[in-house]
Amino acid sequence: MIREITAEDVPALAAVAAATGNFSPEEVKTVEEMAKESLGSNPNGYHFLCYVEDRRLLGFACYGHTSLTDGAYDLYWLGVDAREHGRGVGGALLAEVERRLTAEGGRLLVAETSGTDAYAAARAFYLHHGFHEAGRIDDFYAVGDAKVIYVKRMR
Amino acid sequence: MIREITAEDVPALAAVAAATGNFSPEEVKTVEEMAKESLGSNPNGYHFLCYVEDRRLLGFACYGHTSLTDGAYDLYWLGVDAREHGRGVGGALLAEVERRLTAEGGRLLVAETSGTDAYAAARAFYLHHGFHEAGRIDDFYAVGDAKVIYVKRMR
Repeated sequence: MIREITAEDVPALAAVAAATGNFSPEEVKTVEEMAKESLGSNPNGYHFLCYVEDRRLLGFACYGHTSLTDGAYDLYWLGVDAREHGRGVGGALLAEVERRLTAEGGRLLVAETSGTDAYAAARAFYLHHGFHEAGRIDDFYAVGDAKVIYVKRMR
Repeated sequence: MIREITAEDVPALAAVAAATGNFSPEEVKTVEEMAKESLGSNPNGYHFLCYVEDRRLLGFACYGHTSLTDGAYDLYWLGVDAREHGRGVGGALLAEVERRLTAEGGRLLVAETSGTDAYAAARAFYLHHGFHEAGRIDDFYAVGDAKVIYVKRMR
């Protein structure tokens, strides 16, 4: 089951971010803060969805409209507990993000990830799910750690 | 003379944004809000510089460290009054941005602009000043309006 998060989900969401195997402590903290802010009285434009099975949160996605664009959206975060990889949780979350942004008139979705070996599975995931590589900035996150930009056009 | 902005500069800064010939009303408003926030008690990480001659503000730049990176910076805005184009105001602002971010340990600067004919001069400016194109997202800002991503490595 995929649904929007509530305040009660934030601790489990942060735990899943830590359990993806790919989020640094700083990134886990950033995800947690963004999730809290998205639920506050002055929301930040980030929308968090979570995948829940038997009351357990297995994965989450965060997306939002890109300001100053007509129909572009960013996929800020997509994370699945490493013990649940390969079961389609990420693909189901992505499909729900696409369904929602298309319903709002969104035309394209941009995802950025790292070019290091540790993110090979993430890059393969995006290519497998209809994204193409639109750019690459070498040494972006750190020396030797490129940013790779993926884009998917909605139909 | 290039210096950091003060609250008194914000109206002139917004007027220059409108006088660049390339900022939409929504973008002018966004620049103004970002400038105000950068001066507030809870600053947003955006740094605004202005180029002033005979007490008149001719151009401005806005840059900031890109979160979750070690040494990447974004050039969010660079605007020069269209009546002052071709005099080196933009180049001087860019050089000062580079001087400041390098002093903070910055390694690279990313600038994004539009792929439309109206932004041909902006794209030529970046290429002339040592940036290279690192990516392009067609139909990003709107259908027919691509985002072009430029990167410059600091020495």
